[in-house]
Amino acid sequence: MTDIVRADGRAVDQLRPVTIERGWSAHAEGSALISFGGTKVLCTASFTNGVPRWLTGKGKGWVTAEYAMLPRATNSRNDRESIKGRVGGRTHEISRLIGRALRAVVDTKALGENTIVIDCDVLQADGGTRTAAITGAYVALADAIEWGREKKFIGQKSQVLFDSVSAVSVGIIDGEPMLDLAYVEDVRAETDMNLVVTGRGLFVEVQGTAEGAPFDKRELDALLELGVGGCATLRGEQLAALGLEASA
Amino acid sequence: MTDIVRADGRAVDQLRPVTIERGWSAHAEGSALISFGGTKVLCTASFTNGVPRWLTGKGKGWVTAEYAMLPRATNSRNDRESIKGRVGGRTHEISRLIGRALRAVVDTKALGENTIVIDCDVLQADGGTRTAAITGAYVALADAIEWGREKKFIGQKSQVLFDSVSAVSVGIIDGEPMLDLAYVEDVRAETDMNLVVTGRGLFVEVQGTAEGAPFDKRELDALLELGVGGCATLRGEQLAALGLEASA
Amino acid sequence: MTDIVRADGRAVDQLRPVTIERGWSAHAEGSALISFGGTKVLCTASFTNGVPRWLTGKGKGWVTAEYAMLPRATNSRNDRESIKGRVGGRTHEISRLIGRALRAVVDTKALGENTIVIDCDVLQADGGTRTAAITGAYVALADAIEWGREKKFIGQKSQVLFDSVSAVSVGIIDGEPMLDLAYVEDVRAETDMNLVVTGRGLFVEVQGTAEGAPFDKRELDALLELGVGGCATLRGEQLAALGLEASA
Amino acid sequence: MTDIVRADGRAVDQLRPVTIERGWSAHAEGSALISFGGTKVLCTASFTNGVPRWLTGKGKGWVTAEYAMLPRATNSRNDRESIKGRVGGRTHEISRLIGRALRAVVDTKALGENTIVIDCDVLQADGGTRTAAITGAYVALADAIEWGREKKFIGQKSQVLFDSVSAVSVGIIDGEPMLDLAYVEDVRAETDMNLVVTGRGLFVEVQGTAEGAPFDKRELDALLELGVGGCATLRGEQLAALGLEASA
Amino acid sequence: MTDIVRADGRAVDQLRPVTIERGWSAHAEGSALISFGGTKVLCTASFTNGVPRWLTGKGKGWVTAEYAMLPRATNSRNDRESIKGRVGGRTHEISRLIGRALRAVVDTKALGENTIVIDCDVLQADGGTRTAAITGAYVALADAIEWGREKKFIGQKSQVLFDSVSAVSVGIIDGEPMLDLAYVEDVRAETDMNLVVTGRGLFVEVQGTAEGAPFDKRELDALLELGVGGCATLRGEQLAALGLEASA
Amino acid sequence: MTDIVRADGRAVDQLRPVTIERGWSAHAEGSALISFGGTKVLCTASFTNGVPRWLTGKGKGWVTAEYAMLPRATNSRNDRESIKGRVGGRTHEISRLIGRALRAVVDTKALGENTIVIDCDVLQADGGTRTAAITGAYVALADAIEWGREKKFIGQKSQVLFDSVSAVSVGIIDGEPMLDLAYVEDVRAETDMNLVVTGRGLFVEVQGTAEGAPFDKRELDALLELGVGGCATLRGEQLAALGLEASA
Repeated sequence: MTDIVRADGRAVDQLRPVTIERGWSAHAEGSALISFGGTKVLCTASFTNGVPRWLTGKGKGWVTAEYAMLPRATNSRNDRESIKGRVGGRTHEISRLIGRALRAVVDTKALGENTIVIDCDVLQADGGTRTAAITGAYVALADAIEWGREKKFIGQKSQVLFDSVSAVSVGIIDGEPMLDLAYVEDVRAETDMNLVVTGRGLFVEVQGTAEGAPFDKRELDALLELGVGGCATLRGEQLAALGLEASA
Repeated sequence: MTDIVRADGRAVDQLRPVTIERGWSAHAEGSALISFGGTKVLCTASFTNGVPRWLTGKGKGWVTAEYAMLPRATNSRNDRESIKGRVGGRTHEISRLIGRALRAVVDTKALGENTIVIDCDVLQADGGTRTAAITGAYVALADAIEWGREKKFIGQKSQVLFDSVSAVSVGIIDGEPMLDLAYVEDVRAETDMNLVVTGRGLFVEVQGTAEGAPFDKRELDALLELGVGGCATLRGEQLAALGLEASA
Repeated sequence: MTDIVRADGRAVDQLRPVTIERGWSAHAEGSALISFGGTKVLCTASFTNGVPRWLTGKGKGWVTAEYAMLPRATNSRNDRESIKGRVGGRTHEISRLIGRALRAVVDTKALGENTIVIDCDVLQADGGTRTAAITGAYVALADAIEWGREKKFIGQKSQVLFDSVSAVSVGIIDGEPMLDLAYVEDVRAETDMNLVVTGRGLFVEVQGTAEGAPFDKRELDALLELGVGGCATLRGEQLAALGLEASA
Repeated sequence: MTDIVRADGRAVDQLRPVTIERGWSAHAEGSALISFGGTKVLCTASFTNGVPRWLTGKGKGWVTAEYAMLPRATNSRNDRESIKGRVGGRTHEISRLIGRALRAVVDTKALGENTIVIDCDVLQADGGTRTAAITGAYVALADAIEWGREKKFIGQKSQVLFDSVSAVSVGIIDGEPMLDLAYVEDVRAETDMNLVVTGRGLFVEVQGTAEGAPFDKRELDALLELGVGGCATLRGEQLAALGLEASA
Repeated sequence: MTDIVRADGRAVDQLRPVTIERGWSAHAEGSALISFGGTKVLCTASFTNGVPRWLTGKGKGWVTAEYAMLPRATNSRNDRESIKGRVGGRTHEISRLIGRALRAVVDTKALGENTIVIDCDVLQADGGTRTAAITGAYVALADAIEWGREKKFIGQKSQVLFDSVSAVSVGIIDGEPMLDLAYVEDVRAETDMNLVVTGRGLFVEVQGTAEGAPFDKRELDALLELGVGGCATLRGEQLAALGLEASA
Repeated sequence: MTDIVRADGRAVDQLRPVTIERGWSAHAEGSALISFGGTKVLCTASFTNGVPRWLTGKGKGWVTAEYAMLPRATNSRNDRESIKGRVGGRTHEISRLIGRALRAVVDTKALGENTIVIDCDVLQADGGTRTAAITGAYVALADAIEWGREKKFIGQKSQVLFDSVSAVSVGIIDGEPMLDLAYVEDVRAETDMNLVVTGRGLFVEVQGTAEGAPFDKRELDALLELGVGGCATLRGEQLAALGLEASA
């Protein structure tokens, strides 16, 4: 790594301050208010006994997610999607990404015929909202599963989560790979990549996009290495929030 | 008043604990996270120089509001209105109520050709979400007006706000008039009334509905008296949050 | 009351001419074409044996209402809500108000597992469309209940309607409280209030809004007195239309 | 023709009773409440100075129509299209038909850059709603054009309408061609045809559909003859309603 | 007929070159890519065992159609109806026409409780898209019925199709009746008519519209004669595509 | 690579047969019907002089794409998104991907204030529809740019395309990395990755998703190598279709 110092004083391989306020919601079966610097996402998990009709009778559960942003989460106000009457492409795409990320560490047979919906609502946005959402959603999901176990909807010995999952953004700015881009960095990045990595260090999602110049294999490798390191740190934060000892 | 003690230990004429976290949002021109007991509403005010086309050139500003609820703000999850593709009747009705309440204390000529949109997003619901929204929205609005003044969009001597405004619910439960109903009280109320009252004690809105038995004039008078008292207390909280001395 | 004479020659406590044409529709189980001066609303009641799924098996019926306005009911043409693809906030709000007003006098257990939908379509608008709708809807509802009794969907001795209900607008114009505002009066009113009152003189809804200056308790009391008087007169018209003797 | 007598006592070549109540609406620039037996359609014409953007500056006017049905116009209640959020295929198709029929007798250059929208709202349906709508819409249109002339939006000598237009349904029931089908006849018809004919006896629309068995040329000719006769009678009714002497 | 030669060299009573590529789709139970000159429509038939709920248990099948156009099928690009969020009036109208045309030759009892949906997607448009769609849809339908027979969803001896059906446009240009209008002709036509005719020469639909001057009976007869001739030729193409000998 | 032979006889690093039918559409400014085995996508490019309002006056052009699938492109019929009234998440996501891929090789300043919309409509689907769409869209785009140059909307010497772009899917099945998955392979893949690569071998998009087990760095590298090879072959096909000599 280099001696480059970023606008907010971070090193290129350093995350912004992370906080995870577990159990923020009085109503949800699991919840976490997570912040990555100025990005704040409220993640709530809703547990329902039963599954959607297309899955009934297969002995498997279902985990899905919905992502949304408050109209003034960003620097200028956006119209509400409820008022526009349609959900935008970006919203759909991120909702699907979060759902896939969570399902990658869930044993749906062990979950049984139960449904968990994770709502990730961005209260304030400063880059990395989807990666904060995935990281916080895992905590809410873990608590909702425990709730289901206590209520006997899930077997006492069922290991529903066989790994943890977190996510982080990486990008190339002025030719330099950097970890966890804030909004001002994100708009300047030539390449933008979101990585979803399990606690064991395996990839669930690798989504890299050249916003400016296309990138080569060497740059890709540098980004992957930065991201895997960031996700390992996030894993520690998740375990701490859940009151578990970090394995690393 | 009677010696009745409510489920949460309050007297019949007592508000739930009120907190107003002013300036919660890093982006909005004015903002407040308000709580009435377990009800938490994030109010953000977005200031735009200019007005909608239908108002252009009339030398007047515009203040409007949008109310919404996160899907898991309540005890069980509701489908998102953005996913359903339409905004429900209750949502529309409350948005319109909040807008009218705020406009009742705004001198739109003094505001000049500027628009302020107040978003009231319910993060957690435990009864009285619309009254908390109005009370918090006033604080966000006051700050957005100050922002506009600092940025010279509003004249230095213009008195845009000629009064303050707050709101509270009252209701009759088991024949007894009570102030500021929590959710468990609200569902049991025979009559439910929302009052919007100015700092000077004048009525902006009186919305009473018999959910069970219709009510008579004597009951109506008792409810009005309770509500006016509650709004006076809320006014003090608003002034304190804004760093002003309460006039009462 | 004062000697003020209104634009159409009425006294301040006088209703516009009211007509109720019962049984206007050849198809509906109950119907009434009601006029309050230039305001004409067609109210049709549709009776269905059975209830919505969420109410099944509870031994109770359901009464609901939908309000709409023809595009050229007003002075200038409005776009159709069917073409816009969404129902506006005002339409939703009034539909909900009419439904609540009617349910306030219905014993849903006596109704049994039957559903009555009241459609209130404004053919011509000149102020007070929602109050005319409620007043006419009661007549259509009463006939639909009789139809259900004749067809044996409702028990012969069940008293489904335990009171009647009517509605009227009141308002303050140039400081003077007035009854049943026509459109030209409505747009000038400082305060606008809709009252829904039962035949026994009890309040179902009190919806007062300061359009201009907020109002005080003394003004509120004057409006309530005017409105209760107007609703008593409307009750007489309803009973006459239904071929019953007025109780007053 | 035969000696067949229809359910309502009519001869096969006889229209149902026709009434045209001209000027029904207090607000519209032209209006007519038309009935063909139990079918009642309120037609209102809204005149606007100016044309849609795509027609601006071409020196031509625009005439269009919208057709809709009240939810309980029919024997059982239909959901409102505004609530469903979309306009059905049948509604679209009939709206387009009415617009084309009217434009066939309008000289849009003589109309000048003015727009007339005709709303045809079916208050009660008993077959032939689209043909009644066209016949009534012509009367409303004629009055709206006169209104435009009086207001000097249209030149005093401009002949905007160069012919009249009316419409009627014909059909084959049990092998017998019949004029102006009521609903009970319409559902039994093997072939159903709507004819739009000008006052001079020329065809604007010929829309025949085999609902049951396809039809041959001889049957088609019999239907055309019946329909042309019916439209001639309707023309007389239109002229009478407009206070003009029938030319026939 | 006259010696008039059309822009593309055709005689007034001559079809454009017709091709029917049967079995174009690898997935559909029946399919045909049909071209009428530059108009190309892909027709796919989807066979489902079972019927919509409203038809269940009546021992009858259901045949329906959906018509759509690719955004750049035409000379300039049209917005997608999926993006606009609503299906246009013309699309609805044509979908309904195709469905009615096909049902006119289907014995729904012989089809049994099976559903066939025919999708007609216009890949390239040069006039006559609806008539090409009907003509191609018949071929796709015939193959889907054979598929159902092979799969034993339809009885071996059931005669589901009791006739064939094809369609063609005719119109009057400069006073001259012409067959099968290309787009450049269609926009100039004074009268435009679509005819749907069975293999036996009977009419299923006669839809004539005066775009310019209304037309008289003599012109109507000339158009009908041209269209019946064109449909007979199309019938031969359909039979050839299906590997059957033409009956004519 | 291994000796594994796939269901269709291909080697693990072998593409399905690729065909590109350039200029398929008579109307579009550029078009290509591309097939990857059983996957067939019609790509049409629509050139418009001018840009969307948000880009006006910046001296830059705009390239965007829309992806859609015919209802019976797949093995069982899907409801049309136009009928459902909303565009699904997957459709949005792929449309955005195609647009980004194309913009990565376009110099929007050289394009000038012109807009090119690429419609990619899947006529038949057998896996890899988005990668075929990108590959075909490039050919349509190149032709639309030439059209713009001929029409003088683009400068004669402007080099709008500074590289080519193609895409291919790769995946891991039974632990084995494979190129260009057909549908039956896609549904079995543990990991699914789409790569968008320029003619110079640089990455524009790397989108890898673990559908089953998460993947490690070694597997990721194997997939990247396979994909880069496949894209090089596709580049040759693109150049051949465009009548250019392949540079490789």
